[in-house]
Amino acid sequence: MRGTVLHGPRDIRFENRPEPKITKPTDAIISLSATCICGSDLWSYRGIESVDEPTPMGHEYCGIVEEVGKDVRNIKPGQFVVGSFATSDNTCVICRDGYQSSCVHREFMNEAQAPQLRVPLADGTLVATNDVPSKEFIPSLLATSDVLGTGWFAANAANVKPGSTVVVVGDGAVGLLAVLSARQMGAERIVAMSRHPSRQKLAREFGATDIVTERGEAGVARIKELTKGIGADSVLECVGTQESMMQAIQSTRPGGYVSYVGVPHGVSLDGEQLFFAHVHLHGGPAPVRRYLPELIKLVLDGKINPGKVFDLTLPLDQVAEGYRAMDERRAIKTLLSPTE
Amino acid sequence: MRGTVLHGPRDIRFENRPEPKITKPTDAIISLSATCICGSDLWSYRGIESVDEPTPMGHEYCGIVEEVGKDVRNIKPGQFVVGSFATSDNTCVICRDGYQSSCVHREFMNEAQAPQLRVPLADGTLVATNDVPSKEFIPSLLATSDVLGTGWFAANAANVKPGSTVVVVGDGAVGLLAVLSARQMGAERIVAMSRHPSRQKLAREFGATDIVTERGEAGVARIKELTKGIGADSVLECVGTQESMMQAIQSTRPGGYVSYVGVPHGVSLDGEQLFFAHVHLHGGPAPVRRYLPELIKLVLDGKINPGKVFDLTLPLDQVAEGYRAMDERRAIKTLLSPTE
Repeated sequence: MRGTVLHGPRDIRFENRPEPKITKPTDAIISLSATCICGSDLWSYRGIESVDEPTPMGHEYCGIVEEVGKDVRNIKPGQFVVGSFATSDNTCVICRDGYQSSCVHREFMNEAQAPQLRVPLADGTLVATNDVPSKEFIPSLLATSDVLGTGWFAANAANVKPGSTVVVVGDGAVGLLAVLSARQMGAERIVAMSRHPSRQKLAREFGATDIVTERGEAGVARIKELTKGIGADSVLECVGTQESMMQAIQSTRPGGYVSYVGVPHGVSLDGEQLFFAHVHLHGGPAPVRRYLPELIKLVLDGKINPGKVFDLTLPLDQVAEGYRAMDERRAIKTLLSPTE
Repeated sequence: MRGTVLHGPRDIRFENRPEPKITKPTDAIISLSATCICGSDLWSYRGIESVDEPTPMGHEYCGIVEEVGKDVRNIKPGQFVVGSFATSDNTCVICRDGYQSSCVHREFMNEAQAPQLRVPLADGTLVATNDVPSKEFIPSLLATSDVLGTGWFAANAANVKPGSTVVVVGDGAVGLLAVLSARQMGAERIVAMSRHPSRQKLAREFGATDIVTERGEAGVARIKELTKGIGADSVLECVGTQESMMQAIQSTRPGGYVSYVGVPHGVSLDGEQLFFAHVHLHGGPAPVRRYLPELIKLVLDGKINPGKVFDLTLPLDQVAEGYRAMDERRAIKTLLSPTE
């Protein structure tokens, strides 16, 4: 089998890798229907997060179960399944509280940009559909695996409710799907902060009512203007930089909610500033598993079409070009189709 | 009139001050039944917050209304009233949302360690009792003005619910009343972090079920031991230092809640660490006005006795000794009785 490995900054190779095998009795092996490249993969691709050794890549996946370990009870060969970037037993006290991405048995997935994948804790990690879905659903089902689940968490963690005024900081795929999520949760006004016409267009399609192109202090001032000087009820930070985090906190009304769902890079929050901002702050690795059954149903019922964030589709063996296109912002998000 | 003025580190003087007068039609003048010294006053007393010029002190108060401006509708001379450290119109959108301490017309009070006080926005800031309460209620009613209201916010902001496991970091008066608040909200287990026998005793009286004397990493390890390795549901940070904040965040379960209610001094939160802690974080200046009606009722109904935090009572003109006693931790909190 060949799979995707990062050897150093901007050095992505599709190269020979061992076939995945059942190594624990709770594992499953799946054949991927599709996989993709995540905005977060770009941190290491760009060398902002350094890799010490060749590192397999990819943590978004859906596909057909090939084989399961002897302790797997609910997941069966032949089923179509979706999982997330974090494995979970889905039974521990943290999972039962809805924080599966901090499960006591969590492992982070990282070999999904390949035709086959081993998924640990299959029963707790994977969600199976009743039937194998038809091909047109694959991009949207793949989106539930991370990017939609993460946008959904952003909206949920920022307390988006019917009637809310919402700001989304970041126009990557997660930010765009945070817009879709806020719309699904009944937000009345959704401001997307974006300066890219193609992303603005998709944001509007997903439910944004306003676009703000300014950033930093000018962006905050614009949000204040739009909210009678008070700030937004809910601000969803979908970037992970110091600037975007401060922009989010300062755009929120006192007593309002800020969520942050991308791993922060070089972010440091001043305690006193946060104190007087008077906001609620919640974020972390999105507990996608909590939302998967609901999101899969929304997709299969035709209520949402999050797969629209994939504006580039490539055969898996052209994964390096997929990274380049996202790095250069030629593509919002690249879907990869296994061909082997 | 004489009032309390800080001239520099540890230089508190009780000296001549102008009589307060109605300066705006929304003001009230009150004669204080009692006032007190706040743990937060010690930041400037100790020179950690520097004062550039002689600064009047005090922001906790209750007393009898002497006079009101011509636009004051609900507050009347002769009434007994309690206010908080932040004035509020109690009508703006932020106030209506329960965040009166960030009211668009907020002013911070700072002349309350005196026999008389001007209170701006009297209608929105002050809460009157039906009758003038008898003397034995004064310490507890004074406590609602800040220290109980702040402890209550700590418990509320950290989502304390019936059955919760709660940790309180800090054994000052706010921390002790955070214990009382958590008990009132139905917490099942309340761990007070304290190494002072007299404060431990009061914590137990207020409802603490466990005492932890360790701090920092050892304190976190002890909390993890007490919570099956998971961390507490709600951790109430009532100190405001880097150590106490990190102790609070690390003692909380993923998906749990951290509140912080003292102005942070020199606190900086690492974004990535906070992200993987996976906690909810909320704090800021306590919206005491939101809680005052309920807290005053609990006191007058004899359900709670927060006035027990005052373990030293002095005539107001001995205010300097009151500061010394708290600075040296000989007293938890000093109540001051006007005598002029």
